[in-house]
Amino acid sequence: MDGMDFFDVVGTQRAMRRLKPDPIPPAVIRRILDAAICAPSGGNRQGWAFIVVQDASLRGKIGALYRESFMLLLEHAPAYKAATTAPAGSPDRKMIDSALYLADHMAAAPVLLLACIGTDGARPGLTSGASIYPAVQNILLAARALGIGSTLTTVHHRFRHDEVRSLLGVPNDVEVAALIPLGYPSGSFGRPPRRPVSEVAFSDRWGARFEG
Amino acid sequence: MDGMDFFDVVGTQRAMRRLKPDPIPPAVIRRILDAAICAPSGGNRQGWAFIVVQDASLRGKIGALYRESFMLLLEHAPAYKAATTAPAGSPDRKMIDSALYLADHMAAAPVLLLACIGTDGARPGLTSGASIYPAVQNILLAARALGIGSTLTTVHHRFRHDEVRSLLGVPNDVEVAALIPLGYPSGSFGRPPRRPVSEVAFSDRWGARFEG
Repeated sequence: MDGMDFFDVVGTQRAMRRLKPDPIPPAVIRRILDAAICAPSGGNRQGWAFIVVQDASLRGKIGALYRESFMLLLEHAPAYKAATTAPAGSPDRKMIDSALYLADHMAAAPVLLLACIGTDGARPGLTSGASIYPAVQNILLAARALGIGSTLTTVHHRFRHDEVRSLLGVPNDVEVAALIPLGYPSGSFGRPPRRPVSEVAFSDRWGARFEG
Repeated sequence: MDGMDFFDVVGTQRAMRRLKPDPIPPAVIRRILDAAICAPSGGNRQGWAFIVVQDASLRGKIGALYRESFMLLLEHAPAYKAATTAPAGSPDRKMIDSALYLADHMAAAPVLLLACIGTDGARPGLTSGASIYPAVQNILLAARALGIGSTLTTVHHRFRHDEVRSLLGVPNDVEVAALIPLGYPSGSFGRPPRRPVSEVAFSDRWGARFEG
């Protein structure tokens, strides 16, 4: 299972939304979780929890909640709606078609991994994410290193958070920050479509191009 | 610069707060940023920006704002305050001593990297972090793969966010989500102190132990 170069992993991890139903061995899931817990969290509090959902009935219910959430997102986010009528083959259209496929097939992934973060009763904000999304990224990367496809989704949090919490018995002072389907991919890993560093990096001050 | 196994990187990335002043070659900084932009973001919007601060005067001003923020955190967070009087050598005490060192020496790091995320004018919440902290984690991991120490800090956001934005000319609809010092480390990389997977992973439902 070992042997992939770090930069090969980080440079070819991309959202894989078409996943095969084949089961993932427990040792592989554990290896992914062991990568997750190496991530940093605020004050090293490790207020995280990871729910590995493999039960078919629960996956079906989570999948239905995800689909409802995604359809509501299409209504509320004009950019997503517009993407559904973008030219076939364009990056936006490919992304939305893939996302619509996932909305219909979330439950078919053999593992749905939910990444949770305790809030100590405080209202979670942007920087609360600094204590869970680094672990989520480790999950996506470790999965890719082991040949497993994944994608980071959060839309349930906006539209069906209470329902997801209730379904899985998650306490009210814990946020389900991410829903990540895991499975062996139908497609191929590869460099994800991104704007280049030259467009997003600045030197010393906002707007000053970084010449690295 | 290549050749580190992915799991060796992810398993030995830990907060390195004692950094040497030696400069980091521009090509190395670019390599770290190239890893950052491979991360996912909501709808692949890539609303991120990365400010590479190397100017000594700016580093000094950011360092002062960071120190003020950290001292205010000590006043507001009883757990941090308590850690300052924990037994010498205990994990809590080592963490806080290291954090106090960083508070006094942030400006000595040759690079201060600020990870920013656009909000489109909306109030940022927990899941806004899903569009920037995966990139931040890629930065920490790529730095470690290249022998460079780092640590993820966010406390400026709570206490001195407007001042940091103003200093660097960051627009008001952009959040400075992380301040990351980068430098060659004085200490050694190694497995970070963490609770085991068995304590934080559940199977199917909250509270049901994952046997992987």
